[in-house]
Amino acid sequence: MKITILTLFPEMFDGFKTTSIIKRALEKDNIELEVVNFRDYTTDRHQKVDDTPYGGGNGMVLSCQPIVDCLKSVKSYNSKTYLMAPTGVCLNQKLVRQLAENEHIILVCGHYEGFDHRINNYVDGAISIGDYILTGGELAAQIVSDAIFRVSDGVIAENSHLDESFENDFLEYPHYTKPFEYDGHKVPEVLISGHHLNISNYRLKQSMLITKKYRKDLFERHNFTKRELKVLNDEKIFADID
Amino acid sequence: MKITILTLFPEMFDGFKTTSIIKRALEKDNIELEVVNFRDYTTDRHQKVDDTPYGGGNGMVLSCQPIVDCLKSVKSYNSKTYLMAPTGVCLNQKLVRQLAENEHIILVCGHYEGFDHRINNYVDGAISIGDYILTGGELAAQIVSDAIFRVSDGVIAENSHLDESFENDFLEYPHYTKPFEYDGHKVPEVLISGHHLNISNYRLKQSMLITKKYRKDLFERHNFTKRELKVLNDEKIFADID
Repeated sequence: MKITILTLFPEMFDGFKTTSIIKRALEKDNIELEVVNFRDYTTDRHQKVDDTPYGGGNGMVLSCQPIVDCLKSVKSYNSKTYLMAPTGVCLNQKLVRQLAENEHIILVCGHYEGFDHRINNYVDGAISIGDYILTGGELAAQIVSDAIFRVSDGVIAENSHLDESFENDFLEYPHYTKPFEYDGHKVPEVLISGHHLNISNYRLKQSMLITKKYRKDLFERHNFTKRELKVLNDEKIFADID
Repeated sequence: MKITILTLFPEMFDGFKTTSIIKRALEKDNIELEVVNFRDYTTDRHQKVDDTPYGGGNGMVLSCQPIVDCLKSVKSYNSKTYLMAPTGVCLNQKLVRQLAENEHIILVCGHYEGFDHRINNYVDGAISIGDYILTGGELAAQIVSDAIFRVSDGVIAENSHLDESFENDFLEYPHYTKPFEYDGHKVPEVLISGHHLNISNYRLKQSMLITKKYRKDLFERHNFTKRELKVLNDEKIFADID
């Protein structure tokens, strides 16, 4: 799995590449992150990559030529190419898993007002990470890369994905660690019972109730299993979500 | 406007602080970013900040003590405190504008399995940037900081916000810059007409049609003005979104 980033600010990826889980991921043979400055591809003798918008308006627009030529240079037969743009499809964990199945993903980061619309003729699509506006696409591209590398082979132990938020429609259940009592707040008794089924039922119920409370949309579109319905309606299973 | 980040990986913010618009923003008197390592606040003699989860399971859980003590140290009477967590409220541009009205925001970044649930007793809430899983909260905290600083006083010229995606429920209209023809693809004629009303109507129509196509949810919940309805239904206004 290789990700290539096209950006005017390659230095924004330095911290990302050298920290923690991503650094360890990049040390593996099958994970690669390439960062390319598309200014290197401009044919403008003043190194310009943008110009004023047709029809007037604020800000500058990124020109076709440097980005399209850079794309042609880094693309291969198995590359999938996406603009980072608020008009793109919204990233979610399902899309992350789909993207992670590709051998090579190219993400193009914009700045200023945005891309010349005609660049869409040279890419497979656009990705948005959420309904908010950023100063550029660099952080968004790091988010996409982080999420993809995270689910790629061998980066994180496979079984540690299973209970996580969004992997099964539900938000994750609450976690507790030592001490048993902190500042008057105790850990729920069931977690120290040693009774595996009770713990599992308690966690499932918490997970469903937290999702119902904070993300009604996820809760309502879920196809509940028999076990989930039983746990949800069993009043003997303790629930401490208010 | 000051943002304080609590993290175990302060170096992940180096690139963010020194690049482009954020660097210029941080040179202003009214914008400040503080990054604090909460490991410095642990009372554990081995510098530990996490421990195994009660009830068993994968991964480690961040303990209450280092984070709560660090929060107490950096908080003042006007601070608002949020965990970066997938169970949080989902960031959107409206929330960005609300957050930007505070004088001091504290964002706590998790890693590993997550936070001891009892930390919620010491914060004002939790923020999620989207329905996907990251290796940690650091990129998410940079996203929140970038979006907030961007709308803060003086960082970007006020009028350049108005036409942007999500500021008025609609995605942004397409931009074009020179050359007029690129690789056989031309700029829509109306944009070189010099007719301001036609350009404005064309852009509004594009904006609405793009939103209808890619984000039906935003389109359907919008309260349309008379002008918007007139432009949307006027067949003489060119629309090139298929």
